[in-house]
Amino acid sequence: MCWLRSVARLSRSSITRVPFNPRSLSFTTTASAAPPSDTAAAAPAITRGEWSTVSRGFVGLGPTVPGREKPRLVVLGTGWAGCRLMKSVDTNVYDVVCVSPRNHMVFTPLLASTCVGTLEFRSVAEPVGRIQPAISHAPGSYFFLARCTSVDPDSHTVKCETVTNGSGSVPLEPWKFEVSYDKLVIALGAEASTFGIHGVKEHAIFLREVHHAQEIRRKLLLNLMLSDVPGIPEKEKRRLLHCVVVGGGPTGVEFSGELSDFIISDVFERYSHVKEYIHVTLIEANEILSSFDIRLRQYATKQLIKSGVRLVRGIVKDVEPERIILDDGTQVPYGLLVWSTGVGPSGFTKSLDLPKSPGGRIGVDEWLRVPSVQDVFAIGDCCGFLESTGQPVLPALAQVAERQGKYLAHLLNQIGKAGGGHATQAINLDLGEKFVYKHLGSMATVGRYKALVDLRQSKEAKGLSIAGFVSWFIWRSAYLTRVLSWRNRFYVAINWLTTFIFGRDISRI
Amino acid sequence: MCWLRSVARLSRSSITRVPFNPRSLSFTTTASAAPPSDTAAAAPAITRGEWSTVSRGFVGLGPTVPGREKPRLVVLGTGWAGCRLMKSVDTNVYDVVCVSPRNHMVFTPLLASTCVGTLEFRSVAEPVGRIQPAISHAPGSYFFLARCTSVDPDSHTVKCETVTNGSGSVPLEPWKFEVSYDKLVIALGAEASTFGIHGVKEHAIFLREVHHAQEIRRKLLLNLMLSDVPGIPEKEKRRLLHCVVVGGGPTGVEFSGELSDFIISDVFERYSHVKEYIHVTLIEANEILSSFDIRLRQYATKQLIKSGVRLVRGIVKDVEPERIILDDGTQVPYGLLVWSTGVGPSGFTKSLDLPKSPGGRIGVDEWLRVPSVQDVFAIGDCCGFLESTGQPVLPALAQVAERQGKYLAHLLNQIGKAGGGHATQAINLDLGEKFVYKHLGSMATVGRYKALVDLRQSKEAKGLSIAGFVSWFIWRSAYLTRVLSWRNRFYVAINWLTTFIFGRDISRI
Repeated sequence: MCWLRSVARLSRSSITRVPFNPRSLSFTTTASAAPPSDTAAAAPAITRGEWSTVSRGFVGLGPTVPGREKPRLVVLGTGWAGCRLMKSVDTNVYDVVCVSPRNHMVFTPLLASTCVGTLEFRSVAEPVGRIQPAISHAPGSYFFLARCTSVDPDSHTVKCETVTNGSGSVPLEPWKFEVSYDKLVIALGAEASTFGIHGVKEHAIFLREVHHAQEIRRKLLLNLMLSDVPGIPEKEKRRLLHCVVVGGGPTGVEFSGELSDFIISDVFERYSHVKEYIHVTLIEANEILSSFDIRLRQYATKQLIKSGVRLVRGIVKDVEPERIILDDGTQVPYGLLVWSTGVGPSGFTKSLDLPKSPGGRIGVDEWLRVPSVQDVFAIGDCCGFLESTGQPVLPALAQVAERQGKYLAHLLNQIGKAGGGHATQAINLDLGEKFVYKHLGSMATVGRYKALVDLRQSKEAKGLSIAGFVSWFIWRSAYLTRVLSWRNRFYVAINWLTTFIFGRDISRI
Repeated sequence: MCWLRSVARLSRSSITRVPFNPRSLSFTTTASAAPPSDTAAAAPAITRGEWSTVSRGFVGLGPTVPGREKPRLVVLGTGWAGCRLMKSVDTNVYDVVCVSPRNHMVFTPLLASTCVGTLEFRSVAEPVGRIQPAISHAPGSYFFLARCTSVDPDSHTVKCETVTNGSGSVPLEPWKFEVSYDKLVIALGAEASTFGIHGVKEHAIFLREVHHAQEIRRKLLLNLMLSDVPGIPEKEKRRLLHCVVVGGGPTGVEFSGELSDFIISDVFERYSHVKEYIHVTLIEANEILSSFDIRLRQYATKQLIKSGVRLVRGIVKDVEPERIILDDGTQVPYGLLVWSTGVGPSGFTKSLDLPKSPGGRIGVDEWLRVPSVQDVFAIGDCCGFLESTGQPVLPALAQVAERQGKYLAHLLNQIGKAGGGHATQAINLDLGEKFVYKHLGSMATVGRYKALVDLRQSKEAKGLSIAGFVSWFIWRSAYLTRVLSWRNRFYVAINWLTTFIFGRDISRI
């Protein structure tokens, strides 16, 4: 009874944060059903650059006022490029608005390790708010969980709609809004290539997002358990436990290595009833790790074979729910199919009415500007140097994206400090140094405490290339110090330690 | 080129684990399409107690042979009761076969903490193979990811079908099989009660499994981000960020406490644009924590109100997608609805043709046997003392389940050692001590480093009851030492430490 009295007291005084009586909660709940006039009445007074509401015919963030407001930098995407940029942008100069369908950056080089439980999923996801804290609390800075649907360089606005997956039983209608920008950075990355092969999107799993890794893990553990069930025919068991990886680039090789590590050190012990049935096959049309030094390629091949990965040279022609058809007619039954054959321009990139580089990426000049329009920049896998620059299109690597993000942050800070931050104010500024990419080397792990480090600056150049335990150690350390926050560095170290001591976690949650 | 040579070499010699040539992988892949004769030919020779195959008209594990094989203990369920039992069962005496739709135990008292990122999901999930390692590698012990569909005490068999959620784009047909048992332990738990209220199953989220906690977390973070989007009307914002908890038992109170902790220490800092809009309401028809001492109830009420939780006394009449209707007509709009109004017998329990206890649970005698049939036992939330025993039905608590699991493991070990392990061999054995439950006290946390510990043995008895920081400390320590494996104890401690230092994780993965 006494708590009921407390409730009564509560409704009078004890919560001061917001005067809100639960007994009077009987208002119309859907946004669309609320008449605009009512909404406008409830909303705070509208100022320029603040929320504009439905009643004004424009939903979103309006243009900023030079002199009264900071210029607004809009960043599309939360990959390596966008996040590195946001990390270094001077928030005293700009308000930062980030639009992305995910609120975190994925530390992609370690993603393969999460599929088999070597690392936790959360250890490789870095929330944007931790990378650039201003986005969480600075008055004019925001993160919007949304997809950009179009860019209008003339009016300096982007159109967006919210992402509502996981909103529950009744999916929410996406909410549409516009954001005016002073500077726009497109860092939306690329899309996994399927080469138009039928069935890839439906049946294969990519390895680019945390939810992909989660899906791979769930399916792998499910198949391990299903194959143990009484009466499952031998052939079906063999199919369920056949893990096929298509694409012999670093992602495919690293995932194959992790998988065979998992099989050798964990499946053999914890699923010992079915250990004879599990196999990994890596299918590649050309050579594996084709960008690496020949000695490293040989080493990788030897290591993979040693740990039980079957290497098959072949071209996939068709993907069916339970088997792949190669172009020579070979049928490869699979229980798990991971697709990592590289990336290409996304549908959104293709749809943009902007000049393109060779290969269909957004074309940029040496300062990473989109030259035909004002105040628009592009970085990362979605951009490429225009043919007119005479520069080659850079490879789709985290390293390139990260370097471009860092460069552009400094360029934008410099522009902002020179008074060119607001829309169309940077026309006559001297931009200084061009962006020059210097390749620092490539790394890939092949499982079992072995890795490759290729320190040559290009495929043709000479330079150091090492393989084995030492490079595995370099690889781990290099990654550990590149994980952005201390929290995640700590977690990755703890994960590695516990995997080493207790083995990988196998709970299917 | 060289790796191609290696592949060629590989197909001749290097992998010796299984002679399997990828080029010859062109067999029929679906189980049903394989003719039975073919399957039987491929399978190893059939012995009693080993895999029986389709061609024999019985798919599953056949009866064991006394003298040649250990008796088979079949455990249905991986909750507190089943897992505690498996932990202590002597695997020199029994082969253990566990059938459950999840391969891990959920450490339920800490589940509420995972919804807001205080703990990681994996820290509260303990794989069955870690609880009873024999299940992973002993020749006659198995874990089957499956649901039991019926029990036949006369033939000493259970019918099961595999669980295949998460199997990918094309859902697998469940595979049906039978398992013969010598001793059967039903530990399938209970089901969340909805009291037949319309819309609960569709729109509310329970808090009993890890995937429930994941769903709550995803929805909470989605709503936090959606409400920050330009132009969302005030009322919609307020609705999205209104978290409603129905049920004032320990789960509801603990979740409300965790949620308000999250709001105060994390939302205020990391979602500061929307902090004025987020609220927690706890709806309960009677008193909160009704099993606790009155002083503790008062304390809990005060603490919850202090941390901003609104307590509403009311009965829910109807649940719509975006609002709840109470029986007095009050409409409560919500963005997140968590339902924790206790548990009742599951559909499977109701379907069993076995005697029932008051309340519809499986009726057991003082030795936890189902008395009308042989070799069947029931423990945990799914069982209750038969009226004829004169004992009250015990509350649905982890504590009860755990104690019953431990008791039954020792009883079964004793039976097995006395030669009564095999089916129908335990009729004339002296079972020794009856199961007696002694309540050690109840605990609940109310957030902000405060908890309640009620050490009275029953609601009417006198005894120690303490509240505040000291009991929070006791609560944490008690749970930490009850987490089963060292790995998870370590992870829970690390999670608490990092949450304390860095705050809760907010990446939505």
